[in-house]
Amino acid sequence: MATPRDAFHVWIPIDVRWGDMDAFGHVNNAKYFTYCESARIRYFEEVGIRGDGPRGGLGPAVVQASCNFRRQVHYPAALEVGVRTSKIGRSSFTLDYAIYRRDDGELVADGSSVVVWVDYGAGVSRPLPDDLTARIRALDPLPA
Amino acid sequence: MATPRDAFHVWIPIDVRWGDMDAFGHVNNAKYFTYCESARIRYFEEVGIRGDGPRGGLGPAVVQASCNFRRQVHYPAALEVGVRTSKIGRSSFTLDYAIYRRDDGELVADGSSVVVWVDYGAGVSRPLPDDLTARIRALDPLPA
Amino acid sequence: MATPRDAFHVWIPIDVRWGDMDAFGHVNNAKYFTYCESARIRYFEEVGIRGDGPRGGLGPAVVQASCNFRRQVHYPAALEVGVRTSKIGRSSFTLDYAIYRRDDGELVADGSSVVVWVDYGAGVSRPLPDDLTARIRALDPLPA
Amino acid sequence: MATPRDAFHVWIPIDVRWGDMDAFGHVNNAKYFTYCESARIRYFEEVGIRGDGPRGGLGPAVVQASCNFRRQVHYPAALEVGVRTSKIGRSSFTLDYAIYRRDDGELVADGSSVVVWVDYGAGVSRPLPDDLTARIRALDPLPA
Repeated sequence: MATPRDAFHVWIPIDVRWGDMDAFGHVNNAKYFTYCESARIRYFEEVGIRGDGPRGGLGPAVVQASCNFRRQVHYPAALEVGVRTSKIGRSSFTLDYAIYRRDDGELVADGSSVVVWVDYGAGVSRPLPDDLTARIRALDPLPA
Repeated sequence: MATPRDAFHVWIPIDVRWGDMDAFGHVNNAKYFTYCESARIRYFEEVGIRGDGPRGGLGPAVVQASCNFRRQVHYPAALEVGVRTSKIGRSSFTLDYAIYRRDDGELVADGSSVVVWVDYGAGVSRPLPDDLTARIRALDPLPA
Repeated sequence: MATPRDAFHVWIPIDVRWGDMDAFGHVNNAKYFTYCESARIRYFEEVGIRGDGPRGGLGPAVVQASCNFRRQVHYPAALEVGVRTSKIGRSSFTLDYAIYRRDDGELVADGSSVVVWVDYGAGVSRPLPDDLTARIRALDPLPA
Repeated sequence: MATPRDAFHVWIPIDVRWGDMDAFGHVNNAKYFTYCESARIRYFEEVGIRGDGPRGGLGPAVVQASCNFRRQVHYPAALEVGVRTSKIGRSSFTLDYAIYRRDDGELVADGSSVVVWVDYGAGVSRPLPDDLTARIRALDPLPA
């Protein structure tokens, strides 16, 4: 079951590029993960995670990603991706994504990824900072 | 739990390209799906599925894909991807993947995808052809 | 010398994706060619070239591409690409591109590509159809 | 005119991935630049340029790239890319590339790129270090 559309508070537009298509003449499966990545980076900005990545200190690491491909997409197409936190734990949270066509609102894909808070140097997980958890909960109300 | 290595009978080598890395300085998440795609295309060749794709007739459509990212990978790296059918149904089958470093045999990622047999024109699923099922079972013995 | 901005009559917007960046933390060189490709496909639509590609019949083949990288680009960035025909021959034409930042109008790159009209099956060049040449000249006035 | 094959002393293998193809069913133009990039990174390693990129200090910046597409390439294909310095100046050098099919030795593309030595922070070019010039000349003999 896809998440209802109004559950998403962070959205990004994606304009499908001709080059996103593969030899099957439709948008390549891997590109959907790039679209979700764009949404995730936007979400990170929204909750105050800086995009430095694994060069030192603490930060997010995607440890799992999945996607359901519901409709083929062809260039030209204008999409939008909604992203929200659907679950939050001590040291990780789960992001859900839904990708819609902008013209007719058709759901073309949905998916999720698990983000763990890690000490990049030590290679181990760490508790999510309280202020990050608070910002996530402010954006996406979750059951306590 | 990752599938044991000797369960895979189809393997492809992947040489990580510098350009597979992203701004975090490691191989981008979406590239793992490209690596699995390369393995899947090879598997399709092995079981006699031609790579025409959704241009007409019947053929495979990936409807779901997932990946667990277990180790960061950086250029230069030599990987290998094992692929096998772990489940087969009336009109679909599930492929499992495992990605190892070639030098030390470390598992860096594993994942799976669900492939449905579809009538591309009608946009509906169809039973897997008997000869395809037989070739898959010959390659990857599965519980009846 | 870059082509003056008002020489371009076909424009497309490009929203830089986080994933367009490489391990150097800036937009990867190869992506500029993807941006120009998006502009070229749009230009082809504008002059009535259908995007079937090399699957049969006659059509365009890019035989040469070049790009000058004038400014580094980082996510997030909003670009626009102008494209025009700068030269037309018996069986080929040259497209020029200019890529600007949308916020401050800074030129970040420019380039060109040579497009030959080919018989895909025979693998040889053919004269540009008269109506195509006429549509190109109508869009981009060129010296006779 | 393509550079003769024995002029190249640095080579890398490239195994074409299915995903390198685009909706035209052949290897996408932009991928050739990725192939050349892989060769360039290898060449940089060979002459002692570390791959830190534009994060500080001095280093290489590609300011121009071009490619001639001589043959279409389709998956599966095994290629090799030769790379050499063809020209060296005070603060820049030119790399030439040639891409061959490994099975029949057919030249499928060739190209070049101009690499400038820059102070990333100041955004200005700097003279090539003498030891770098010496290593380049040792690898690729050039007219004084």
